Amino acid sequence: MPVVLYYFPVKALGEAIRLLLAYGGQEFKDERVPMEKWPSVKSSMPFGQMPVLDIDGKKYCQSIPIARLLGRKYGLAGDDAEQDFVIDQNVEFINDIRAKAASVHYEDDSDLKAKKHDELMKSFYPMALEKLDEMIKKNNGHLACGKLTWGDFIFAGIFDYLKTMMQMPDLEQKYPSFKQVVDGVYGIPKVKAFSDKAPQTPF
Amino acid sequence: MPVVLYYFPVKALGEAIRLLLAYGGQEFKDERVPMEKWPSVKSSMPFGQMPVLDIDGKKYCQSIPIARLLGRKYGLAGDDAEQDFVIDQNVEFINDIRAKAASVHYEDDSDLKAKKHDELMKSFYPMALEKLDEMIKKNNGHLACGKLTWGDFIFAGIFDYLKTMMQMPDLEQKYPSFKQVVDGVYGIPKVKAFSDKAPQTPF
Repeated sequence: MPVVLYYFPVKALGEAIRLLLAYGGQEFKDERVPMEKWPSVKSSMPFGQMPVLDIDGKKYCQSIPIARLLGRKYGLAGDDAEQDFVIDQNVEFINDIRAKAASVHYEDDSDLKAKKHDELMKSFYPMALEKLDEMIKKNNGHLACGKLTWGDFIFAGIFDYLKTMMQMPDLEQKYPSFKQVVDGVYGIPKVKAFSDKAPQTPF
Repeated sequence: MPVVLYYFPVKALGEAIRLLLAYGGQEFKDERVPMEKWPSVKSSMPFGQMPVLDIDGKKYCQSIPIARLLGRKYGLAGDDAEQDFVIDQNVEFINDIRAKAASVHYEDDSDLKAKKHDELMKSFYPMALEKLDEMIKKNNGHLACGKLTWGDFIFAGIFDYLKTMMQMPDLEQKYPSFKQVVDGVYGIPKVKAFSDKAPQTPF
């Protein structure tokens, strides 16, 4: 069963999928498409976006749905519909933070970028980070359900990207709970083995 | 079992949940919080956001996860993990369109707003709308799996909001398939009965 993951040569939205495949012991081709090749590849992707996971020629799109599917396959989902919901809910909260940070990070106008960042620093990040910290502490170092789920993989995979976009390189020093989730995933032997051999990227 | 849905007095991200509850025959209090009351209510919501669904005092947050949970409860999920994935994937695609449209709609600077809208009109909307049209036609007038799923409720619930944010009031005239999904949901007797009695809002 040939499995290929197509994504840019960064962690960002593709890393959780890589880590889940590694966790599941699934051999896969980690196809890192350089930005300069992307325009010629884009039209071959169902929604003109990556990540795309190709399993035997069938293409799976959208990072969170792919992670949910792999999580279910590898025993990293909830025990019931209620637990599945809590994972989904908490993952969406991470995704909200990501989307807001991205709206600053990808702003071209530098004055506007600074203004938007200041707004988030004032009215959103402090509340969101406190809630996230509280959530992880309540769940024994996990994102949801008090145990390892695919939600932890989403968090671990996106963490460096979040820190970059939020302009908070020392985020885990203020919130050690965040590092606990990241280390919990990257410390799993199969995940570590994959990560040690993978190209090192800043985010 | 007292059930309350807290949301603003618009369809937007809350309507799919209202329609799903109606479909499921679930009595609920449709609590429409006016914008002027929101600042005093915000801190009582777990993530400082709405919609929030309160079931017996337990609060469920995040619109798509709530819709997925209700869909599962009311027999509107996929038949297996693969079908569940396709619903999730296609719902995320709608959500991508929503997020891009929102980034224009909620831009305060009018020049910048016009510029961003033009960019989406050139480089994103045409491709996205064609793909969505193709997706619905391939699925016999549904968003996924060739049948009614909770994904159709997401689409139907958000449609007027999307049209407003995309500045495309006549969208369904160009894409009759979109209207087919919307009418398919709002035409279900229990949904229609709810909708006929609900406050009428433009989006």
